[in-house]
Amino acid sequence: MHHKQHVRVFLTKLGILVNRQIILASRPTGLPCPENFRMIESSVPVPGEGEVLIRHTHLGLAPAARLQMGEAASYRAPMKIGDVIYGQALGTVLKSRNPLYREGDVVMIQDGGWQEYSISDGHAVTKVESDIAPLTVWLGALGTSGMTAYVGLLDFGLPQMGETVVVSAASGAVGSMVGQIARIKGCRVVGIAGGQEKMTHLRRDFGYDAAVDYKDAAFDEALREACSAGIDVYFDNVGGHVRDVAWPLMNRNGRIVVCGQISEYNDSPASGPGWFDILARRLSVRGFILSDHANRRPDFLRDMGAWYREGRIAIREEVQEGLDLAVPAFIAMLQGKNSGKAIIKL
Amino acid sequence: MHHKQHVRVFLTKLGILVNRQIILASRPTGLPCPENFRMIESSVPVPGEGEVLIRHTHLGLAPAARLQMGEAASYRAPMKIGDVIYGQALGTVLKSRNPLYREGDVVMIQDGGWQEYSISDGHAVTKVESDIAPLTVWLGALGTSGMTAYVGLLDFGLPQMGETVVVSAASGAVGSMVGQIARIKGCRVVGIAGGQEKMTHLRRDFGYDAAVDYKDAAFDEALREACSAGIDVYFDNVGGHVRDVAWPLMNRNGRIVVCGQISEYNDSPASGPGWFDILARRLSVRGFILSDHANRRPDFLRDMGAWYREGRIAIREEVQEGLDLAVPAFIAMLQGKNSGKAIIKL
Repeated sequence: MHHKQHVRVFLTKLGILVNRQIILASRPTGLPCPENFRMIESSVPVPGEGEVLIRHTHLGLAPAARLQMGEAASYRAPMKIGDVIYGQALGTVLKSRNPLYREGDVVMIQDGGWQEYSISDGHAVTKVESDIAPLTVWLGALGTSGMTAYVGLLDFGLPQMGETVVVSAASGAVGSMVGQIARIKGCRVVGIAGGQEKMTHLRRDFGYDAAVDYKDAAFDEALREACSAGIDVYFDNVGGHVRDVAWPLMNRNGRIVVCGQISEYNDSPASGPGWFDILARRLSVRGFILSDHANRRPDFLRDMGAWYREGRIAIREEVQEGLDLAVPAFIAMLQGKNSGKAIIKL
Repeated sequence: MHHKQHVRVFLTKLGILVNRQIILASRPTGLPCPENFRMIESSVPVPGEGEVLIRHTHLGLAPAARLQMGEAASYRAPMKIGDVIYGQALGTVLKSRNPLYREGDVVMIQDGGWQEYSISDGHAVTKVESDIAPLTVWLGALGTSGMTAYVGLLDFGLPQMGETVVVSAASGAVGSMVGQIARIKGCRVVGIAGGQEKMTHLRRDFGYDAAVDYKDAAFDEALREACSAGIDVYFDNVGGHVRDVAWPLMNRNGRIVVCGQISEYNDSPASGPGWFDILARRLSVRGFILSDHANRRPDFLRDMGAWYREGRIAIREEVQEGLDLAVPAFIAMLQGKNSGKAIIKL
């Protein structure tokens, strides 16, 4: 028996809950490697007045965590060495000293982190209604990924019926929702992703009108052909080369929603396209961070909930079991290997 | 006596009006040179049914003409070799076969061109009220330059009281209006221009709170110091290096109005700044072309007219006399040598 398991069994016998946590061991350079992470065990803290203790059942992985592993402050403070890796979690309230939550409540925790338990004062915790949708859907379509797609596309992309909407990382947790919302809004939707399998997901599962493979040697031409009427809205999840290929296809008065730049998260940021086009084509390039738009949550839940119930939103999830798998699943996601929402079941 | 003058005198004696015109002789590479232009003479056309013949009294020079001298279509079709150089003109109606205009009416002609006479069907011609402001003001503050500043700053820059607004080419025809409108709106206004003389214009004539010289070796640091609270609105007339220095100073939710990229008009366009900042700082980068926003003209004339009458708008004009001077004045403007609106009096 492993030493750590010894300790765990020992502590458990004493009635002390053990919290397994994945922490930042060192800052990655480029693509993270397993050595940048470390699994540690600590005792589960006791909730104070107004706090709840939550046992995590699922973690939602998101590329943004890579950003906070770097030293530079971006839209969230960087993790410190030794911090639990940032991430959303689903869980059950185990103990509550907050009148708004009861033991047994199922909740989504915005800052749960890659661990088995977390404590919260109720801030950034949302009760989940499991009668509306399976639990994990609250990490994806009805969670941050879906709301990012909803706010970004509708508030900043301003898609009009009949327009061409292009989405990069189109089979991802956010991209697949952007594509489907754009379809619901009557747009022609072109998805960009990598590899033949994803092309199938885009066309068959998510109903994209056209799917273009950025790994294909003829990508530039294929995108141009798929967008014969130009691009009215480009929902940019990736930045870099894919964005640069989409750029010259932008129509006059086109809108570019800058939601993610995942192709640059592992490297130093690339330079952007020349600005003359912004002027000549009256483009609008708009960056946004979902946390600024919490006021849109009721609208999002009303609309997305309805579309989901009506069967108009297809969901893809890649669920793996065990906290140990969070690190390899996260690295695979940054390499563009997943399709749909990446979830770790605990 | 010069051969051309002979012809002119001869035609004039016959009662035929001679129109001197500056045409595009060849497309410039880089900064235009005098050889790219040619002065020709032609007979003044006779207005047809619904048309008016206008004698130009003033030409307004604008950097945008450089764009249309190149081969690439931008927001306006390129000139063809032999075309009269594009430009606004002020003039007097000489003959009218259009019931909306009478002989003697003073008008501003959007597409008058660098010539002594033009024919118009009344489209893109505006009657000018000389009792409100001196004629030439209709080429600058109350003309396209002023309206570009008004629409760009107010509709896309969305300046809020107390915010820091930075303007490049700040002493130019558009920039000087942006700075003054921003001051009227209660913003702290920082102007960027080149050379000590312009620094004086910015501070003394236009009332900028701070003036920064991009030709100064310590420009980067000076701009940072002048914007100690960051930049909320960057009104970009120049692109290139100046834009790249302003970029890292942009505040969260900052707005960048892309109005001109004059530093790149003579060269191939440069690449833009990396897009990660757009995301992390929730920036909005918006290009616009005034001609899309004609519906704002009544608001513009109401507000700008009032500000002008109240003495809140200072005007700088650089007036030179003679069509011959249009070419050297235009080249000097592209070199950043003018301050205020460049006007040719005929």
